[in-house]
Amino acid sequence: MKFVTIIGIGLIGSSIARVLKDIDKKIQINIVDTSKESLEKSNLLKLGNIYSLEIDKNIEESDIIFICTPISAYEKIFKLLNKFELSNVIISDVGSSKVKIIKLAESILKNKIFVPGHPIAGTEKSGPENGFKNLFNEKWFISTNCNLCNEENIRVINSIWKKFGSKTITMKPKDHDSIMAITSHIPHLIAYNIVGTASELEENIKSEVIKFSASGFRDFTRIASSDPIMWRDIMLSNKDEIISLLDKFNNDLKQIIDAIKKDNGEFLVKKFQKTRDIRKKIVEAGLDKN
Amino acid sequence: MKFVTIIGIGLIGSSIARVLKDIDKKIQINIVDTSKESLEKSNLLKLGNIYSLEIDKNIEESDIIFICTPISAYEKIFKLLNKFELSNVIISDVGSSKVKIIKLAESILKNKIFVPGHPIAGTEKSGPENGFKNLFNEKWFISTNCNLCNEENIRVINSIWKKFGSKTITMKPKDHDSIMAITSHIPHLIAYNIVGTASELEENIKSEVIKFSASGFRDFTRIASSDPIMWRDIMLSNKDEIISLLDKFNNDLKQIIDAIKKDNGEFLVKKFQKTRDIRKKIVEAGLDKN
Repeated sequence: MKFVTIIGIGLIGSSIARVLKDIDKKIQINIVDTSKESLEKSNLLKLGNIYSLEIDKNIEESDIIFICTPISAYEKIFKLLNKFELSNVIISDVGSSKVKIIKLAESILKNKIFVPGHPIAGTEKSGPENGFKNLFNEKWFISTNCNLCNEENIRVINSIWKKFGSKTITMKPKDHDSIMAITSHIPHLIAYNIVGTASELEENIKSEVIKFSASGFRDFTRIASSDPIMWRDIMLSNKDEIISLLDKFNNDLKQIIDAIKKDNGEFLVKKFQKTRDIRKKIVEAGLDKN
Repeated sequence: MKFVTIIGIGLIGSSIARVLKDIDKKIQINIVDTSKESLEKSNLLKLGNIYSLEIDKNIEESDIIFICTPISAYEKIFKLLNKFELSNVIISDVGSSKVKIIKLAESILKNKIFVPGHPIAGTEKSGPENGFKNLFNEKWFISTNCNLCNEENIRVINSIWKKFGSKTITMKPKDHDSIMAITSHIPHLIAYNIVGTASELEENIKSEVIKFSASGFRDFTRIASSDPIMWRDIMLSNKDEIISLLDKFNNDLKQIIDAIKKDNGEFLVKKFQKTRDIRKKIVEAGLDKN
């Protein structure tokens, strides 16, 4: 790896830049972002070697291209990539949904290698100033199969993420999207919704809500402060999985509400006891800490 | 304060015992619990001076009685307390809902002082072995008005909690219940529900859900591992506030689902942006950390 292009220099892109420089100072990093402000910050932070507002001829030097933009920018980016000679370059991404992205890639990219990727890492903060080189350390990186890559391409990408400190796994795009819907997308959606509900309460109650937020609500506000554009794109690009799971969530919730209305304490205890098992397994697997 | 009775020696009760002994080793602590196991643990941990399975004549020595059981035990406890001469003793509690508890107290307790209380502190763990003396430190303690206490009684209880390290505030029972519904009860209910939904997925997906739980889901499993009996009682005793807020939550969620279905990205971004304001205020108030 001598030359890497990062398209989109936010939290994830800038963390990739940092860990790459940490691995090998000589790696040339070409940073592309449509935001002048983000490029200027990146320059100040010395994240890269080349900075540009548009994808240009430089990209053809790349060994690897990481797409780290919100998903809604992918279509435009794939079309632009087609204008360059990149047949030996591995293009990868970090998007939180995979089925729709792959469909898009397969329909647009011509004579290109594309390895779909997703690091299970991040914080509620965004922007190049909030990235850090250890973000991926001991976190999972998921690559998925698609028709634009072979096993060797996937192996190369996985081995790069191993250098970043990640544990890697390869799965089917549909499986990825189902798992992420329940572990990430629905929790974010619900957190956004509950904080949204609170934000529409009368002013006097709202200030008390903030004061007493330590009792559960605070955790939701952290999740619900993640980047709105990124999450809009995730919700829309994994909509089928999300909506089908939300149907199940809503049915379950209706049952709980009915039980509360009917003073059916037995149902509630059974329900509240079952959830402890999953927590127990998470704690046993040592996954309860950051 | 020379003699304190703690009825119910779980996480909260045992933390009160610990902080009392820390303030003054000479305070006699009378621990009452219907669980032999909890009493034996408390004895091993040297939490008290007297241990009994039933409320007995000893209780008449108390300056203060703290009721720290699940709310469903209150009715029985109030009736038992009536059998003793406690006209100069301040009875207080730590329950997470107030309107129904107060109604119950006012209808049962004869010639008694009762100061409704609620420390906004706790962990997802339960049992006397999980309490600790600093649990209430720098946390809020809420007392509420009721017909069984005067301002002086409330002042006494608030001053005790100040000695425990808490910040204290007194409010109307109804306000307490509204605020707790949104900051604590609904977040717990939603967390229980989402983890419950996940626990009903097929086995192969379930193990992956645990593996990749770091991406949001994990925070919900922590909340959803809290004591089931305690939470059953809270949900049932604050049902009016909870159900009316859940209606609002459900309407808001329906709007988000509709927006996802119709690819209405603009609506989603607006929704997801608004929630950042509340987080900002929590962070600004320094309330984002434990």
